[in-house]
Amino acid sequence: MWGRTDLLDESDEMVKHRTAEEKDVLTDSEGIKFEESRNGAVLITSIEVNENGEKRIGKKKGKYITLTDLTVNPDDQESFEALKKIFIQKLEEMHENLLLTKSSKVLIIGLGNSTITPDAIGPKAIEYLQGSSISQMESNVKVVMYAPGVTGQTGFETSNFIEAISKAFQPDLIVVLDALAARNSERLCKTIQLTNTGIHPGSGVGNERKEVSEEVYGIPVTAIGIPMVVDGPVLYADAMEHVIHYIASKIEEKESPSSALAVTPMVSNKKSSLDKKVLQPIFGEWVTWPTEEKRKLFEEVFVGKNSSLFVTPKETDAWVEQYAYLLSEGIETWITNR
Amino acid sequence: MWGRTDLLDESDEMVKHRTAEEKDVLTDSEGIKFEESRNGAVLITSIEVNENGEKRIGKKKGKYITLTDLTVNPDDQESFEALKKIFIQKLEEMHENLLLTKSSKVLIIGLGNSTITPDAIGPKAIEYLQGSSISQMESNVKVVMYAPGVTGQTGFETSNFIEAISKAFQPDLIVVLDALAARNSERLCKTIQLTNTGIHPGSGVGNERKEVSEEVYGIPVTAIGIPMVVDGPVLYADAMEHVIHYIASKIEEKESPSSALAVTPMVSNKKSSLDKKVLQPIFGEWVTWPTEEKRKLFEEVFVGKNSSLFVTPKETDAWVEQYAYLLSEGIETWITNR
Amino acid sequence: MWGRTDLLDESDEMVKHRTAEEKDVLTDSEGIKFEESRNGAVLITSIEVNENGEKRIGKKKGKYITLTDLTVNPDDQESFEALKKIFIQKLEEMHENLLLTKSSKVLIIGLGNSTITPDAIGPKAIEYLQGSSISQMESNVKVVMYAPGVTGQTGFETSNFIEAISKAFQPDLIVVLDALAARNSERLCKTIQLTNTGIHPGSGVGNERKEVSEEVYGIPVTAIGIPMVVDGPVLYADAMEHVIHYIASKIEEKESPSSALAVTPMVSNKKSSLDKKVLQPIFGEWVTWPTEEKRKLFEEVFVGKNSSLFVTPKETDAWVEQYAYLLSEGIETWITNR
Amino acid sequence: MWGRTDLLDESDEMVKHRTAEEKDVLTDSEGIKFEESRNGAVLITSIEVNENGEKRIGKKKGKYITLTDLTVNPDDQESFEALKKIFIQKLEEMHENLLLTKSSKVLIIGLGNSTITPDAIGPKAIEYLQGSSISQMESNVKVVMYAPGVTGQTGFETSNFIEAISKAFQPDLIVVLDALAARNSERLCKTIQLTNTGIHPGSGVGNERKEVSEEVYGIPVTAIGIPMVVDGPVLYADAMEHVIHYIASKIEEKESPSSALAVTPMVSNKKSSLDKKVLQPIFGEWVTWPTEEKRKLFEEVFVGKNSSLFVTPKETDAWVEQYAYLLSEGIETWITNR
Repeated sequence: MWGRTDLLDESDEMVKHRTAEEKDVLTDSEGIKFEESRNGAVLITSIEVNENGEKRIGKKKGKYITLTDLTVNPDDQESFEALKKIFIQKLEEMHENLLLTKSSKVLIIGLGNSTITPDAIGPKAIEYLQGSSISQMESNVKVVMYAPGVTGQTGFETSNFIEAISKAFQPDLIVVLDALAARNSERLCKTIQLTNTGIHPGSGVGNERKEVSEEVYGIPVTAIGIPMVVDGPVLYADAMEHVIHYIASKIEEKESPSSALAVTPMVSNKKSSLDKKVLQPIFGEWVTWPTEEKRKLFEEVFVGKNSSLFVTPKETDAWVEQYAYLLSEGIETWITNR
Repeated sequence: MWGRTDLLDESDEMVKHRTAEEKDVLTDSEGIKFEESRNGAVLITSIEVNENGEKRIGKKKGKYITLTDLTVNPDDQESFEALKKIFIQKLEEMHENLLLTKSSKVLIIGLGNSTITPDAIGPKAIEYLQGSSISQMESNVKVVMYAPGVTGQTGFETSNFIEAISKAFQPDLIVVLDALAARNSERLCKTIQLTNTGIHPGSGVGNERKEVSEEVYGIPVTAIGIPMVVDGPVLYADAMEHVIHYIASKIEEKESPSSALAVTPMVSNKKSSLDKKVLQPIFGEWVTWPTEEKRKLFEEVFVGKNSSLFVTPKETDAWVEQYAYLLSEGIETWITNR
Repeated sequence: MWGRTDLLDESDEMVKHRTAEEKDVLTDSEGIKFEESRNGAVLITSIEVNENGEKRIGKKKGKYITLTDLTVNPDDQESFEALKKIFIQKLEEMHENLLLTKSSKVLIIGLGNSTITPDAIGPKAIEYLQGSSISQMESNVKVVMYAPGVTGQTGFETSNFIEAISKAFQPDLIVVLDALAARNSERLCKTIQLTNTGIHPGSGVGNERKEVSEEVYGIPVTAIGIPMVVDGPVLYADAMEHVIHYIASKIEEKESPSSALAVTPMVSNKKSSLDKKVLQPIFGEWVTWPTEEKRKLFEEVFVGKNSSLFVTPKETDAWVEQYAYLLSEGIETWITNR
Repeated sequence: MWGRTDLLDESDEMVKHRTAEEKDVLTDSEGIKFEESRNGAVLITSIEVNENGEKRIGKKKGKYITLTDLTVNPDDQESFEALKKIFIQKLEEMHENLLLTKSSKVLIIGLGNSTITPDAIGPKAIEYLQGSSISQMESNVKVVMYAPGVTGQTGFETSNFIEAISKAFQPDLIVVLDALAARNSERLCKTIQLTNTGIHPGSGVGNERKEVSEEVYGIPVTAIGIPMVVDGPVLYADAMEHVIHYIASKIEEKESPSSALAVTPMVSNKKSSLDKKVLQPIFGEWVTWPTEEKRKLFEEVFVGKNSSLFVTPKETDAWVEQYAYLLSEGIETWITNR
């Protein structure tokens, strides 16, 4: 659950906060291949890190693909249809080196707790897949699917589960579906993330979390995640940034009265050129801290508190339906078209 | 949905932020009868406002009862059982002047959208009640129950619905069940609120919201609500308070090194005696603003933005089950015991 | 619930058991307009009865339309899409005399108990419709929708509910959605029935069931139903017919050994030319009784017994999803296209 | 799913159709220990077969326990509470030779398809158990639970799944929960069956069904099942018996007019003393066949046909809730009390 697949999400952040110039640098870096493109409303970010890149930026080598449509909403079948098509392309792209044939075997695992709505994407996608054509012998690839559910504190973790089934089934590929905790509230329910670098399932408290990855199992692992919740500290820090920008733009506006009021939009990456120093009398020294530092303060304050609170969109139930269906249909199409 | 029954919640706040001395004053005020008691872990607050009181504090005359158990959690059957018993007592107390007999008729309305988990308490309670013994002829009181669901922007609102059924069924009492938006994140899912002052159903945007109340219909109306979500601005202001208290207690601690670190608990009402001025270098002038002012700033910044985000406890699905069941069982017992 | 809209279903039977010659007669009858056509896999039966026809065959005057696709299954999106298109055409045809305009108002009622899977089509369709575009002001026709649920033995029946809302909302049309009890096991989940002759909601035991119809309300009423369960006696009689046909065909086969074994298919209307007398030694006199007589015997034996048992297809949950969605989408398209 | 655990059900039938005298013989048989007792409304049948008994009656050696309460209904909390208590006792009795300690490990598997209501008991019970205290480290016995869902035609069956997890987890006991197909319509939802003789999971068509049993795995296996559906042929044969009894009792009544009409109750085991020969003119030779023969005829006629139809009680959704909860609570209590 939440937090277990941070790798994915951080990789996304790795790109997001950079300026155009920094992105150019990133692209040119030895060991990192970075691509950004747009298909309709969907922004596609692909990063490929090799061993050199891994050393340089501390991110595990492998592919990271992020599909983001900030305009999508849960009633919007057309946008979901478009997103699904791109998702299928990216599934193909991600696995093009892996030659799946009629004798190939794929193990699909849906992580998460089906009784907690925003965590139910994995189990729901498995439910749909179990009812789909790929559970039939006639499928081009032999597929086995499970939603192991909550393991509790039993010492037999989700990773043990996947290992046990893998040993017996001997899959050629493991696909893991999961709901993620977003590091950014505007991405909530607007992004699909894919990586072949593996994941750390289980929000184990106090127990070492075993990685599920090709390095550990010798079997390729593809992790697919949707950010469905955002943690309090992340949200609070985002909110403070908005307050600061809002006040700053009010002051700016007063100082250059000819300019129309342009409230900084929620999704803007534009760095305000404003000198935050002018805000110091109101907000103190704090205002000059980087967002990351503010977030750390919130994390320090809220550690262990309120841990049961989380932020979801109002229409979580509808988003979960849509993404579980998108994942199941996308995977079904990808597998049966091989 | 959220926000429609603010009256209730504000009445609660009316008491909550007062000090012991202020409460004494409140108790003595002409026109306001205030009582606070404890039954096990449950704090019971009863306020009765008459016409004089209404003029003085601007709250509608009537009874306001709040049951709060800050320790309850969704797996805790015993606490829910205890809460249910007190709820039944309060239902009786609230209606003692209303002599329900075998020929009485009660209309129960469950507000909310059953497809949005935290808003589903009303419809779920109706579902349970429709399956219970009180839908039988043998019931001591004749009961009719509906969950009208979402009315959209049709001009025929929930209040029209209730009015239409009331005209035809001629009930002696209308009971309305609803999920509320909390004004305070720590009360989330921990409180049951009852009032006989009526409610404003429908989160109508731009349309006058018609009140459902005894004044309007000539039929007593009891509204029962559970705070299930908290709005962003409320949460952010709460969070900032915690950050400020945290830093303040750190500074205090440094200044009196002998004292053990006593992190201010989330649920504390204790006013820090600390002079917030010492925080001004870090947080600026802002730190000295009252909580309410900070909340207003957040509301100003976030108005219209992010309106689809809300904060719920992780176990919302389980809370909804528990409260819907508690409401249905409590009402069933209260009605069949008459 | 089950049985309340038998009129519809019987009207269907009225046609079904007739031979081609009898159908011709029916077509020619004064007062009855009968049409049968096929669109892909869907058999469309339309009957229009006028006052003369009503006297002759004892069926209420009005339109009866039945859409049947015996090949459809719950995974078969294409067939459902085709069925939906025909359903929309028939909605238009059924209401062509009723000029719905921007100022028209439609009341949609979903009957049934949402907690009993095969009875949940009505409430589920309402849930989908409440989330659709037709609950918005911008809709071409103003639509209000409710699923009243189970009324119990309260004396305030579903018909009172519809009457109360109608008085307040003043609709130009009432549409009622419901699950039906089939009179024929092969039709289960394979048929959509429409009529403008009204329905008798409520399976009231011992209470007069009030009709919901244009005659009673002065407002046109369209009832739309899907047969979702079959009663025991109906099923047993069907089963006995199959046993008899099976044995008969075995005997026939033995007597004309050259003919390949052609087991009478379940859905056949073909009357076996076989002389049932040859079966009398095995099955006795009983075998010569008409199906209807056998059914009556089963009804006599099972009256009041086992009333809680019913027969549904294995995939009831999936059928309910599909039909609730089809009804909601069909109605949404029909209404928004006006 | 249906039919996979016939062993259990047949063992039950093994006893049921015997007369009191035959039961006495059974009790005395070498190799078979038979006990029947009553606790309130619950009839408890225990059979223990050893190797001698296995040879004599062809039933696998082991324990078979059946708890039946023909009066229970899904709203009847008290009866379910009583049934649960006896269920816990029988769990203890069944495992008294298996000394579970703090270091013991139990694997619980919930079979069935969660998207088909009457087949969802296993998955639902697992859902409840995963949310209960036994998934915590503090539990007295280490428990791991899964609901593998539908495996399709993949060649990797439920038995492979159980084997894979068993190898990795090394449990001291495997408990399998499942919905059953009843061989008798009156037992539907009224019976809990336990056995330690293993089961054949998977309704595999054309593939050898691998047994899950102590003999195969070397780990004790306890199977617990609830009959939730009844197959067509079983139901039709039951129905014909009722028709025959009904007619017979009518004739009897006519012949001895003084006796009050005593309609043979559905649940009676009383063998009618009536000479069925008197019915032969009406029902033919068929009437004299044993029930089992009639059932075989129905099975022959309906083989492969109508296989998607099944019979469930009207309140299936409520029964599934109740039994899933009973199983989870019973198992939780049993395990945490060790």
